[in-house]
Amino acid sequence: MISCRSQVTQMIVSAKVRKNLKWTQVAETIGMSKEWTTAGCLGQMAFDKAQAETLGKLFELPDEAVAWLQIVPYKGSLPTSVPTDPLIYRWYELVNVYGSTIKELIHEEFGDGIMSAIDFSMDIQRQPDPKGDRVNVVLSGKFLPYKSY
Amino acid sequence: MISCRSQVTQMIVSAKVRKNLKWTQVAETIGMSKEWTTAGCLGQMAFDKAQAETLGKLFELPDEAVAWLQIVPYKGSLPTSVPTDPLIYRWYELVNVYGSTIKELIHEEFGDGIMSAIDFSMDIQRQPDPKGDRVNVVLSGKFLPYKSY
Amino acid sequence: MISCRSQVTQMIVSAKVRKNLKWTQVAETIGMSKEWTTAGCLGQMAFDKAQAETLGKLFELPDEAVAWLQIVPYKGSLPTSVPTDPLIYRWYELVNVYGSTIKELIHEEFGDGIMSAIDFSMDIQRQPDPKGDRVNVVLSGKFLPYKSY
Amino acid sequence: MISCRSQVTQMIVSAKVRKNLKWTQVAETIGMSKEWTTAGCLGQMAFDKAQAETLGKLFELPDEAVAWLQIVPYKGSLPTSVPTDPLIYRWYELVNVYGSTIKELIHEEFGDGIMSAIDFSMDIQRQPDPKGDRVNVVLSGKFLPYKSY
Amino acid sequence: MISCRSQVTQMIVSAKVRKNLKWTQVAETIGMSKEWTTAGCLGQMAFDKAQAETLGKLFELPDEAVAWLQIVPYKGSLPTSVPTDPLIYRWYELVNVYGSTIKELIHEEFGDGIMSAIDFSMDIQRQPDPKGDRVNVVLSGKFLPYKSY
Amino acid sequence: MISCRSQVTQMIVSAKVRKNLKWTQVAETIGMSKEWTTAGCLGQMAFDKAQAETLGKLFELPDEAVAWLQIVPYKGSLPTSVPTDPLIYRWYELVNVYGSTIKELIHEEFGDGIMSAIDFSMDIQRQPDPKGDRVNVVLSGKFLPYKSY
Amino acid sequence: MISCRSQVTQMIVSAKVRKNLKWTQVAETIGMSKEWTTAGCLGQMAFDKAQAETLGKLFELPDEAVAWLQIVPYKGSLPTSVPTDPLIYRWYELVNVYGSTIKELIHEEFGDGIMSAIDFSMDIQRQPDPKGDRVNVVLSGKFLPYKSY
Amino acid sequence: MISCRSQVTQMIVSAKVRKNLKWTQVAETIGMSKEWTTAGCLGQMAFDKAQAETLGKLFELPDEAVAWLQIVPYKGSLPTSVPTDPLIYRWYELVNVYGSTIKELIHEEFGDGIMSAIDFSMDIQRQPDPKGDRVNVVLSGKFLPYKSY
Amino acid sequence: MISCRSQVTQMIVSAKVRKNLKWTQVAETIGMSKEWTTAGCLGQMAFDKAQAETLGKLFELPDEAVAWLQIVPYKGSLPTSVPTDPLIYRWYELVNVYGSTIKELIHEEFGDGIMSAIDFSMDIQRQPDPKGDRVNVVLSGKFLPYKSY
Amino acid sequence: MISCRSQVTQMIVSAKVRKNLKWTQVAETIGMSKEWTTAGCLGQMAFDKAQAETLGKLFELPDEAVAWLQIVPYKGSLPTSVPTDPLIYRWYELVNVYGSTIKELIHEEFGDGIMSAIDFSMDIQRQPDPKGDRVNVVLSGKFLPYKSY
Repeated sequence: MISCRSQVTQMIVSAKVRKNLKWTQVAETIGMSKEWTTAGCLGQMAFDKAQAETLGKLFELPDEAVAWLQIVPYKGSLPTSVPTDPLIYRWYELVNVYGSTIKELIHEEFGDGIMSAIDFSMDIQRQPDPKGDRVNVVLSGKFLPYKSY
Repeated sequence: MISCRSQVTQMIVSAKVRKNLKWTQVAETIGMSKEWTTAGCLGQMAFDKAQAETLGKLFELPDEAVAWLQIVPYKGSLPTSVPTDPLIYRWYELVNVYGSTIKELIHEEFGDGIMSAIDFSMDIQRQPDPKGDRVNVVLSGKFLPYKSY
Repeated sequence: MISCRSQVTQMIVSAKVRKNLKWTQVAETIGMSKEWTTAGCLGQMAFDKAQAETLGKLFELPDEAVAWLQIVPYKGSLPTSVPTDPLIYRWYELVNVYGSTIKELIHEEFGDGIMSAIDFSMDIQRQPDPKGDRVNVVLSGKFLPYKSY
Repeated sequence: MISCRSQVTQMIVSAKVRKNLKWTQVAETIGMSKEWTTAGCLGQMAFDKAQAETLGKLFELPDEAVAWLQIVPYKGSLPTSVPTDPLIYRWYELVNVYGSTIKELIHEEFGDGIMSAIDFSMDIQRQPDPKGDRVNVVLSGKFLPYKSY
Repeated sequence: MISCRSQVTQMIVSAKVRKNLKWTQVAETIGMSKEWTTAGCLGQMAFDKAQAETLGKLFELPDEAVAWLQIVPYKGSLPTSVPTDPLIYRWYELVNVYGSTIKELIHEEFGDGIMSAIDFSMDIQRQPDPKGDRVNVVLSGKFLPYKSY
Repeated sequence: MISCRSQVTQMIVSAKVRKNLKWTQVAETIGMSKEWTTAGCLGQMAFDKAQAETLGKLFELPDEAVAWLQIVPYKGSLPTSVPTDPLIYRWYELVNVYGSTIKELIHEEFGDGIMSAIDFSMDIQRQPDPKGDRVNVVLSGKFLPYKSY
Repeated sequence: MISCRSQVTQMIVSAKVRKNLKWTQVAETIGMSKEWTTAGCLGQMAFDKAQAETLGKLFELPDEAVAWLQIVPYKGSLPTSVPTDPLIYRWYELVNVYGSTIKELIHEEFGDGIMSAIDFSMDIQRQPDPKGDRVNVVLSGKFLPYKSY
Repeated sequence: MISCRSQVTQMIVSAKVRKNLKWTQVAETIGMSKEWTTAGCLGQMAFDKAQAETLGKLFELPDEAVAWLQIVPYKGSLPTSVPTDPLIYRWYELVNVYGSTIKELIHEEFGDGIMSAIDFSMDIQRQPDPKGDRVNVVLSGKFLPYKSY
Repeated sequence: MISCRSQVTQMIVSAKVRKNLKWTQVAETIGMSKEWTTAGCLGQMAFDKAQAETLGKLFELPDEAVAWLQIVPYKGSLPTSVPTDPLIYRWYELVNVYGSTIKELIHEEFGDGIMSAIDFSMDIQRQPDPKGDRVNVVLSGKFLPYKSY
Repeated sequence: MISCRSQVTQMIVSAKVRKNLKWTQVAETIGMSKEWTTAGCLGQMAFDKAQAETLGKLFELPDEAVAWLQIVPYKGSLPTSVPTDPLIYRWYELVNVYGSTIKELIHEEFGDGIMSAIDFSMDIQRQPDPKGDRVNVVLSGKFLPYKSY
């Protein structure tokens, strides 16, 4: 009996290690970006029926797990509110150190509102650099103005 | 007597409202990017002597405040570990929902290590879109591999 | 010197008690709903220039405070993450007890996504009832689907 | 051996995925609203004997689970005090941003007291809108005045 | 300028020490119970106009403070979620140790619902006892059944 | 192997549901009050040998569990420091809202010290009331004065 | 205006530094132990009238402060729930590391109950030792058995 | 497979209940104090080979568990940072209420430094008293002065 | 099925106790420092293929575990944000007490930036001392200056 | 009136910025190491009379502040239990990531006990390196074995 999505995530992660797959390969099998596919496999997005069945074959999941992949999950991928993993913490630090800056500059340009984390996409690329390669991340989110009434 | 940088930040923020300045204007006076300048004015970066004096004139700060702008501050711009402001929370949510995804994809491309939050730059732009303009943010951080020894 | 919006909120709240005003009266002076007006006066929304000046006269605020009313505030109106006030706690309890229910039913009807808290309005009314009057609250938020890419 | 209600909730959630049921269908089998039924199935309400037996058949639960459905559960459906799921967080944000506003307006209309979260009902509906459909939620709670003595 | 109720509470507490008053004397001046009066003076209840004016004279409060006493306060009288004061902690301990017992016994007698903390009264008395006097506290709260719909 | 009291509590709670027992019936079998008996069965009190054996028969517990019932348990019956269950929360709210009042009135009557939560008893009764029955709870704790030396 | 005991504590601590007094000297002036006297001066105990007046003279306190010394304070002398000061942390560590041991041994000797922290005294002495002097602390608390009823 | 010391602690605690042993008996078998022995059995100290083997026989532990008893454990015996058990909480309360007093008096006698919680011993005894027996605890810790350099 | 690295860590720790190995021996088998090797075996570093296979033989791990050793783990080796173990707490205390000192002195020597915890090595040695041996730890981290742009 | 050491720390920090002093210069005036001197000036150590007076002249402190410098302070230099400043956080991260490693290796070499944070010294140096200079930190703490008795 599978009673929550995180059990399916564990099955996928375990199969990925056993089969020595890469997320970019996984993304190709369902024809979506590597960012969205990875988020979905890690339990943050819902797949449609065809995608779920393809992933089910790739990771040799039982039917019940394939059904769970089509259900909207309870989201949140970190075990603590301040993350302990150094890579993820650096992102938390960016929010902490630059958060007020981001807020000021978006409001200066757009007025009151937010940058959507739902109507949102992300692209992660390697940028070669003689002083050491860089990670380049492009975040794109729709601006949503606060409604006054 | 000024005993911490946050008092200087309050003076700057207060003067900026009174004088109706924009951060992009402030950035131009010292010839740096709007992102770095705003972070510095909000108490997250140290300025050099010339920059500090220029800002001191712009915001009509006392000499003591100008001295403080050249001291490395105790960083962190948020009052709570999970931010309550909706705009900043959306960024925290991105870290929470996509954190494990970002970690997986950077490790897949680069191996064990982190994306630096120190050797780092950020660029925030408006991207016009007929369905509603978008906020485009480019983050660039050097990849630092874990050292084994 | 005013260095943050909460100082202006305190001025408004203090004046409202001294002058014995009602929020519905305040809302009429600027021609907006009582819900949005109250949220703004309590430091959660930005006013435009005309609204800010009207409120400045009504509450006898200094010019600096009127300028602050037009700046997007750092939002969040509760002093603790779990509120201690009994009325506000009941709302927190609704989120805690019914949160998973709301999530299930919105996903069942709309699929993966959220109900916007930005493109959002609220209407609070008294509903007479012989067994004791009821508080009726209508919440309306745009559904935003998760983007796949 | 079943030793707490959450085990029964897991059985129900698991069966619902396997059998591809909708909460509205579940609600019809026991003749109650979809909101109350879902809350009950997710471990927040107690069912009477007839309802519990109907649900037991629908979800193929063992007798012991049917007995547990009639016991008042330890309530609270969220794993953390600040929810990480984006949909549920938006509701928490409403309480945080609008909490003081709701408090002010209810007190202005009714005096000191609370809006009950017990003598309470909720109705969630889709409201078609050309700019994007909206989620409409009506909350109705009895006003309970503070007793002075 | 008074900007929150807790300033008025401090004025009252300070005056009570200076004038060497007892809460039972305070309660007599407004003709209410000592429990409700003390809670009100400590910033947990709203007074009506006559009561507020009587208290204003007794504690020599400015007019602005008298106006604040008639406003519903933001409630909660403890500085930390687990209280550090030994007397108050013992009450927290009762909730922690006996909480599940109280829940079981009220549900056994009344079914699903709560004991109201709003339609509620409390009476604290000394009970002489040769082995050491006892504190006797009677709590009375209306039972509110959960509504099903 | 049983390695902590909470496993025994789970056995008892599970058996109580299966056998459809009431706590008042359980209390009668060992001749103690319903309040103390329930607290003991929920893992907050230690039973003597005869009581433990009677409960062992009633709930069909293994010998090892009967031995555990005679061991003083690690107490505390709530999973979080601020309880999420609405009924238990109302008690926490009483401590939060009335805690400073209780402290003041006990000190006014008795001087510095506490109301014992150990030399303590509790009695929960239904009080019929035409406007809706009430829960009446009498708490009795010995006053313990602070020792000066 | 003095509105809480901690203001009086600050006056005492400040005077003690200025006048270069020792706690043992302070204790002698009121004829009590150094442990109880220090706790009282640090805001954890209430003094009687004669003691308060003696301390008032010693520390040159205003009359209002002397009145406050006779009021039972809100207790708790640490700013965080896990203390950061190394000396005090060692005591917290003792509770953390040896807490379950202390519990087991007291229950083994006395049965269910507690060691009182109210009917309690403490004596701190230097114990000369050639390998380095030791701090010897004797704690004495009345055993209070849990009441069954 | 045993993967952490707490599994061994559970085996010991479980065996102690089944075999109805006392900690003082356990201590005698290895010839150490009851305080140190209990702390070790509860997973806070490492035993030497002979002690571990004696305990292994007494509690009928597998060889792997005997090996674990000789490994230095990850210490800390309480499940929450503020303990919920009333007996252990009283000790936490002592640290909270008297912590600043203990600090002041040790510094007054010894200067800057700490009382060691490592070079430390404890002795718990019953002290008969006609008004109710008392728990007497003697704590002895080496004073360690802060090093200046 | 292995679904996270911590299961592999448990296998290694368990095998190390059973086989009575030392970390220095483990380090020798893969030809790396004892510090880096221990961190890796405790789930904080990723090994290359040859290292993982050597460790797999040494600790008799299944193939799946050997695959996991080559995956970058989710890092962080402590169960609580403030560690309870006395040895590890002393290190946390160093950060707490000397943190601001370290910050000041590094900034004074290097300007704004950090000492890398990634391009980092550590060496732990025993330093004989007649007054009691000392633990000597050398930490070496690359200085990374904050980038201005 | 100065009522706590942190007020003196603020005076020192403020004077140091105004007078443009370096910590190494401050250390020279009292003839101690830069590490210990800085820690003392930041409120973590007590100075003797001569040192305090020298610092008093250097920073132009009032006599009362000089007296406070000789009092043992309440230690702990960080505002939150997980530090937000990136430089200090890296040290916290070292404790989090390498904490269990440090524990294992010290126990392997020394047996059960701790590395003292009191009988402790620290030396921070710049280590030139063509790939970027490094921060070298040597920590030296006495090993203290756990006492068995």
